[in-house]
Amino acid sequence: MSAVKSPIKDESALRTTGDALQGGLVDLIDLSLVAKQAHWNLIGPRFRSVHLQLDEVVALAREYMDQIAERAVAIGVNPDGRVRTVADNTKIRQPDSGYISDDKVVATLTDTLAQIIARFRERIEATEETDPVTQDLFITLTAGLEKQHWMFEVQTQ
Amino acid sequence: MSAVKSPIKDESALRTTGDALQGGLVDLIDLSLVAKQAHWNLIGPRFRSVHLQLDEVVALAREYMDQIAERAVAIGVNPDGRVRTVADNTKIRQPDSGYISDDKVVATLTDTLAQIIARFRERIEATEETDPVTQDLFITLTAGLEKQHWMFEVQTQ
Amino acid sequence: MSAVKSPIKDESALRTTGDALQGGLVDLIDLSLVAKQAHWNLIGPRFRSVHLQLDEVVALAREYMDQIAERAVAIGVNPDGRVRTVADNTKIRQPDSGYISDDKVVATLTDTLAQIIARFRERIEATEETDPVTQDLFITLTAGLEKQHWMFEVQTQ
Amino acid sequence: MSAVKSPIKDESALRTTGDALQGGLVDLIDLSLVAKQAHWNLIGPRFRSVHLQLDEVVALAREYMDQIAERAVAIGVNPDGRVRTVADNTKIRQPDSGYISDDKVVATLTDTLAQIIARFRERIEATEETDPVTQDLFITLTAGLEKQHWMFEVQTQ
Amino acid sequence: MSAVKSPIKDESALRTTGDALQGGLVDLIDLSLVAKQAHWNLIGPRFRSVHLQLDEVVALAREYMDQIAERAVAIGVNPDGRVRTVADNTKIRQPDSGYISDDKVVATLTDTLAQIIARFRERIEATEETDPVTQDLFITLTAGLEKQHWMFEVQTQ
Amino acid sequence: MSAVKSPIKDESALRTTGDALQGGLVDLIDLSLVAKQAHWNLIGPRFRSVHLQLDEVVALAREYMDQIAERAVAIGVNPDGRVRTVADNTKIRQPDSGYISDDKVVATLTDTLAQIIARFRERIEATEETDPVTQDLFITLTAGLEKQHWMFEVQTQ
Amino acid sequence: MSAVKSPIKDESALRTTGDALQGGLVDLIDLSLVAKQAHWNLIGPRFRSVHLQLDEVVALAREYMDQIAERAVAIGVNPDGRVRTVADNTKIRQPDSGYISDDKVVATLTDTLAQIIARFRERIEATEETDPVTQDLFITLTAGLEKQHWMFEVQTQ
Amino acid sequence: MSAVKSPIKDESALRTTGDALQGGLVDLIDLSLVAKQAHWNLIGPRFRSVHLQLDEVVALAREYMDQIAERAVAIGVNPDGRVRTVADNTKIRQPDSGYISDDKVVATLTDTLAQIIARFRERIEATEETDPVTQDLFITLTAGLEKQHWMFEVQTQ
Amino acid sequence: MSAVKSPIKDESALRTTGDALQGGLVDLIDLSLVAKQAHWNLIGPRFRSVHLQLDEVVALAREYMDQIAERAVAIGVNPDGRVRTVADNTKIRQPDSGYISDDKVVATLTDTLAQIIARFRERIEATEETDPVTQDLFITLTAGLEKQHWMFEVQTQ
Amino acid sequence: MSAVKSPIKDESALRTTGDALQGGLVDLIDLSLVAKQAHWNLIGPRFRSVHLQLDEVVALAREYMDQIAERAVAIGVNPDGRVRTVADNTKIRQPDSGYISDDKVVATLTDTLAQIIARFRERIEATEETDPVTQDLFITLTAGLEKQHWMFEVQTQ
Amino acid sequence: MSAVKSPIKDESALRTTGDALQGGLVDLIDLSLVAKQAHWNLIGPRFRSVHLQLDEVVALAREYMDQIAERAVAIGVNPDGRVRTVADNTKIRQPDSGYISDDKVVATLTDTLAQIIARFRERIEATEETDPVTQDLFITLTAGLEKQHWMFEVQTQ
Amino acid sequence: MSAVKSPIKDESALRTTGDALQGGLVDLIDLSLVAKQAHWNLIGPRFRSVHLQLDEVVALAREYMDQIAERAVAIGVNPDGRVRTVADNTKIRQPDSGYISDDKVVATLTDTLAQIIARFRERIEATEETDPVTQDLFITLTAGLEKQHWMFEVQTQ
Repeated sequence: MSAVKSPIKDESALRTTGDALQGGLVDLIDLSLVAKQAHWNLIGPRFRSVHLQLDEVVALAREYMDQIAERAVAIGVNPDGRVRTVADNTKIRQPDSGYISDDKVVATLTDTLAQIIARFRERIEATEETDPVTQDLFITLTAGLEKQHWMFEVQTQ
Repeated sequence: MSAVKSPIKDESALRTTGDALQGGLVDLIDLSLVAKQAHWNLIGPRFRSVHLQLDEVVALAREYMDQIAERAVAIGVNPDGRVRTVADNTKIRQPDSGYISDDKVVATLTDTLAQIIARFRERIEATEETDPVTQDLFITLTAGLEKQHWMFEVQTQ
Repeated sequence: MSAVKSPIKDESALRTTGDALQGGLVDLIDLSLVAKQAHWNLIGPRFRSVHLQLDEVVALAREYMDQIAERAVAIGVNPDGRVRTVADNTKIRQPDSGYISDDKVVATLTDTLAQIIARFRERIEATEETDPVTQDLFITLTAGLEKQHWMFEVQTQ
Repeated sequence: MSAVKSPIKDESALRTTGDALQGGLVDLIDLSLVAKQAHWNLIGPRFRSVHLQLDEVVALAREYMDQIAERAVAIGVNPDGRVRTVADNTKIRQPDSGYISDDKVVATLTDTLAQIIARFRERIEATEETDPVTQDLFITLTAGLEKQHWMFEVQTQ
Repeated sequence: MSAVKSPIKDESALRTTGDALQGGLVDLIDLSLVAKQAHWNLIGPRFRSVHLQLDEVVALAREYMDQIAERAVAIGVNPDGRVRTVADNTKIRQPDSGYISDDKVVATLTDTLAQIIARFRERIEATEETDPVTQDLFITLTAGLEKQHWMFEVQTQ
Repeated sequence: MSAVKSPIKDESALRTTGDALQGGLVDLIDLSLVAKQAHWNLIGPRFRSVHLQLDEVVALAREYMDQIAERAVAIGVNPDGRVRTVADNTKIRQPDSGYISDDKVVATLTDTLAQIIARFRERIEATEETDPVTQDLFITLTAGLEKQHWMFEVQTQ
Repeated sequence: MSAVKSPIKDESALRTTGDALQGGLVDLIDLSLVAKQAHWNLIGPRFRSVHLQLDEVVALAREYMDQIAERAVAIGVNPDGRVRTVADNTKIRQPDSGYISDDKVVATLTDTLAQIIARFRERIEATEETDPVTQDLFITLTAGLEKQHWMFEVQTQ
Repeated sequence: MSAVKSPIKDESALRTTGDALQGGLVDLIDLSLVAKQAHWNLIGPRFRSVHLQLDEVVALAREYMDQIAERAVAIGVNPDGRVRTVADNTKIRQPDSGYISDDKVVATLTDTLAQIIARFRERIEATEETDPVTQDLFITLTAGLEKQHWMFEVQTQ
Repeated sequence: MSAVKSPIKDESALRTTGDALQGGLVDLIDLSLVAKQAHWNLIGPRFRSVHLQLDEVVALAREYMDQIAERAVAIGVNPDGRVRTVADNTKIRQPDSGYISDDKVVATLTDTLAQIIARFRERIEATEETDPVTQDLFITLTAGLEKQHWMFEVQTQ
Repeated sequence: MSAVKSPIKDESALRTTGDALQGGLVDLIDLSLVAKQAHWNLIGPRFRSVHLQLDEVVALAREYMDQIAERAVAIGVNPDGRVRTVADNTKIRQPDSGYISDDKVVATLTDTLAQIIARFRERIEATEETDPVTQDLFITLTAGLEKQHWMFEVQTQ
Repeated sequence: MSAVKSPIKDESALRTTGDALQGGLVDLIDLSLVAKQAHWNLIGPRFRSVHLQLDEVVALAREYMDQIAERAVAIGVNPDGRVRTVADNTKIRQPDSGYISDDKVVATLTDTLAQIIARFRERIEATEETDPVTQDLFITLTAGLEKQHWMFEVQTQ
Repeated sequence: MSAVKSPIKDESALRTTGDALQGGLVDLIDLSLVAKQAHWNLIGPRFRSVHLQLDEVVALAREYMDQIAERAVAIGVNPDGRVRTVADNTKIRQPDSGYISDDKVVATLTDTLAQIIARFRERIEATEETDPVTQDLFITLTAGLEKQHWMFEVQTQ
């Protein structure tokens, strides 16, 4: 039963689009948690700079997860952002507990963002035929993620 | 090894305080996820009102989790807010997937908040002797949680 | 005679694009009037909530009509937003005069928005080949309209 | 003895104007207290919406009581807003103690506002000949009160 | 049946007041549409200046129509702002389609505002005996319209 | 020759209204200069308090003079705010040059405002039959002036 | 019957806490009225300074009464802020009607605040064992009241 | 007798500096009145643009006159900004009464500003030896006046 | 060597995308300089209006050049915005030195924008297959440039 | 002689509380000066980051010193923040003159803050029995200082 | 060794300029402490007014000390703002401990500011030949200090 | 031919002043481009900090170039900010293309700013006799540039 009548009438297109959104939601919720974990446990001479940058990633991830989830429900698909769902489905490599050095955080975030971006680019392709409105959202979010990625990667040089 | 020399010199006091903070962190991260889940999947005639109120809970939970985690690291204890840790340790009853009616959300949030409050009140007691600064934080957050609880419970009448 | 030299050089592409924009303009002007009519004449226990939500629809419709009309003139096509043009061409089912109950408004808006969205999705397709810049505008506006539609439809459950 | 030389030179006109202002002051102070009482003790499914609306009434009553009282002293008449004066002279029906349901609050406020409006309209008439400046203030405040009245009454349908 | 019990008890006074408000509403809605039409289709060397000035007229017309319509419903009269009602009842001379030169827009707006002002001044008289609160609103709006009229007319010299 | 066609069609009514506005303009321009003169040359233990209060009078006088002058031109009457005109026509008692004590300033402002208010009340009467829109402006400005007057006079006690 | 399940499980502790909050509420509502009464009827050379300071007391009293009352309902106790309740229970010495000199107001406020502070300090003690969350609120409000008290008392020197 | 002990100890230097400031004050007060006069009585196709620009001149003149006058009193010289003083001492060519065309206003302001600038440049020289602090103020204000002058003069081309 | 690992894996696609971005960067940097040059050297009766409009073009060009350049580096391509690079590669017709009349500026800007738009539309096509994220950026910027173009061209009528 | 009648009636409790506040005041004033000294004379590759962080410490120290000093006077104890008093009583190790490297500043601040925190924790204990209101202030400030300490110490890793 | 290569190449000029800046720094730091001391310990009927004015002096002194110190380091001279340096070098007469009456504060501040101004005027002269950029800063700060001086001195009349 | 009649009457003085301004304009435009180039192509562990600092340089350079160019035209001299002019006349050493390490950027900016400052100091001297208003502008801008220079140079230590 669907409370919201989907503007996407084709069942298969709807399923593909919904799956892409759900995948993106898991990525973004876990990105927000991973970045907060680093934000809190960070050590090293570049602490202040990286600490602030991580909070920009958190803000972006939270803003994007809201857009993704509300897009899903707007097309009649229920987003699932429960902690167990995220824990079981996230593809993000999990950080160790305890302090994390600034160098390591920068390297890890670079890597994590690169992998998320690869999955978002797949979602852009997946939704090209199924829903141009959702595709446009994935394009916009990918642009934002790639900008963040650049700003971490150049610090590893 | 501790990167931050704790202002709490007593080992046992530090451990008790740290445990209370870690427990509070898990509560607040999951509260933020549970409230977002309801915010997105909500249906029913009171949708708009409850949808907005849930986002206030999310904002409060996010603000509080930051205070809790930064308090932990400030006393030399590493907060652990990774998704797996939260999933395995949360004591909050998890919602079903799919649409959730406004009546059910209000009842559930009332219940969830009441249980979190009970745990926070235990933490106020636990930290009374170990660290007055941390205790004061728990008192402040409990006041905020009890205000939210009231504003949900009166809607169940 | 065209005061603005169109960046779209193909006559037929220009005409198709212009027609899509004019159609969208009529939809949005009438949406703003229909939502204001309901905003003013609303009754029922959910008055305050729906009253405020309707003004968000009005604000969105006014913002979007400006974007649509200025896009039209930017490509050398004159938008026509005169009252007689809108009255004669609108496809939105007109509300009765007098008080309107909150239940009815929610149901009507859900329906009206669904129909406008269907027409906007046709315009996305129509402009795909004729002008990617205009198409992108239709995609953006459709996303906004589908979000509004969801927030009314879930209240009918 | 009057510290402020009144711009209204006629004794009787001054007395009439002053009485109208003092009557309005008592109405508005008690309105602010009655609305706060309901704001705090409210229960029921419409809690959030009515809770917020009541605070708008409180804000309006406080703003208006200040204008009324400062108008009185500006024409050389001492406003009396002491609690005993208000308790002994208020004509507003007093609410019972304890929880108040949202339905009852809406009905009560509709009624209370209607009665205050009737008295304000009498004050518009009373001051027509005695002081056009004060009359204009009563007209402005009546417009605001009638708008509030409408927004409660339509919720009783 | 009236959902809102009118503070104006006399039937005939209520009808006169309601008619004046409905007439003002039609004037203001069409003024907003006519000014937007010119705002979009404007050409000529004074484009930027007139384009901005027209949007001030639109903002004023939208603000005033809301005050007029909410005043109507506050006295228990249903405002009718549907597009067909406006199209059939507007007394504003309609502009041609297509580009409009800045000179012509300035002359037309001067004329249109002068005629609306004449009707608003009749409404001030009509409501003098029937409702001083509504009359005061018409006086306030007329002041605003006459200021706009002056700022267009002096450009025709 | 009149660049602005007056909404007041009766010649005599127009002249009366225009004279009232011109008189008010002279009062307000000179009030702004007299208050600035005192603001600058003030001495005495209450300097800071009176210095700030005088700038509120200046701000109010400047705001009001603009409303008066723009009202005049809006009805087709040319306001004359040239320095010679104000110097030759002002009825405000002029202050001596040099330092002015705070006590004296408070007494003088009380007196000056009282006299301006008397003239404004005459203008309210004068315009009652000639133009309700202008009369309403005089009523509003008088309310503001009487509030200022009260706040100076009570300091002389 | 209690709509809100109290987080304070002990009956007697709840009663003590509730009584303290109700006592504080009466103090603060009457403080706001007494300060407004002085704000309006004030005379003397220090008028402007004291007039402004009194409005800060009013703002503080209103902010604090809201916190007190919402704290009461959050623990399941109904606050009673009706005018009759306040009039019958207030312990604040009531001012005479009519003008009040600035010297007298400063002396009176110093006295009134000192007495309220004494009662708030008793409430801090009373709630120490019954509810640390409520006690913390009383401590915070006492700090604010003692700051106000200081700023009045030093003016009596 | 001087209430403010001047930081400029040399009598003659003080007199020269004071005269320069008083001269600047008269220029700026009359500039503010002349620009307002034009702002109100302006006609012509460029009305809106010039009307706004004139208000920037008024704002600048008012800001500068305050700086000049407060500089004077800060060095122990009483500024004289009374209307009669300005009328008798201004060197600005006075505008005729009645409507003023936009072309004429632009030409006149260009001329008026050029003459004021010439006098300000003399004051820069006059104060070079007498008081570097006052000279710096004249330099700053001259920069602002020359910017305004440029923006009028280029419109006469 | 590339410091940033490109999300675009295909070498040729990357080169095409990078070239398009570099071309856009040169266009936008020079547009910002050309518009500033006109902003400073402008003369004519429409000075103020065109002066302000040119600064909007400058603001837009600066904002867009930043987006373009940061997009380039985000995909691992170094943007080159050095003055020699821009001077040698710009395709914008350069203005003469000295004063420029408002008519000429409007005509020139219309022309310049039209040519930039043509190149941006080619870049939309060029990046369609190589990178949808970059293409979306070009579409967004083209919409903004076409709006500016319209607002200049209609002034040439 | 005490100008402010203390709410703390016990002489010895008052003295203990006052001493704790005076000690805190000296700590905070000198902290503000030491942090500014480093802010100005800082060198090293982390300059910008540490420079900004030091200004946050200054802002916090200034805000806290004001709260401490105003708390003292509110309980009838005179705070002494004169430079000689601070110089003679400060327990903060003084920095050398001249440039200070970023590494050294971070290490020094970590150390300085740790020592201040130790003294603040003693003051929390000292005031526990003498004045809960002052104790609560010390708890709040300690929380803030410990947060700053953490953010410096982690940079030394 | 100098970390910053001075733009002032002449050794002696650099030393003179540096000495002037260091002298100004000591003046301003101690001014900020002296004004805060009075701000806290103030008594008397003018308490509120003087209390607020003193905080403006503190804000100005803090802003100016930052400009002075950063100017010093910008020319390669290390500012020394340590508490011992200020205590040993200040030329400001130190206030007694304990309460200070408002009259005495006003007289003292007048005196203190006059002496600081005299020293700043010497620094203007001293830097005239050595560094025009630093001289300009001293001129600007002197203007601000002389304005403050005037506003205290006129209160002693 | 000069559209703006220069306030500087001496031909030679005007030429000298104009040359100084044109030289400053070229410096500032190229500074803005060089800083943006580094802002975009920056790599290294201090990326974020330097990236932000460079944008402050860009903002400052853009603000200053506008002041310089508008000063030129205000004295009747046409500023030339065209790309070819800047490319051919800039004295700033040009950066290589491609990535730039943070260390290198800091060193380069330090150097570039030092050289620009040297030229600005020459312009201060050059305009001392020719135009004190322009000289004052150069002094102000030099202060800003020297502050930036300091904040880069200390990072090279």
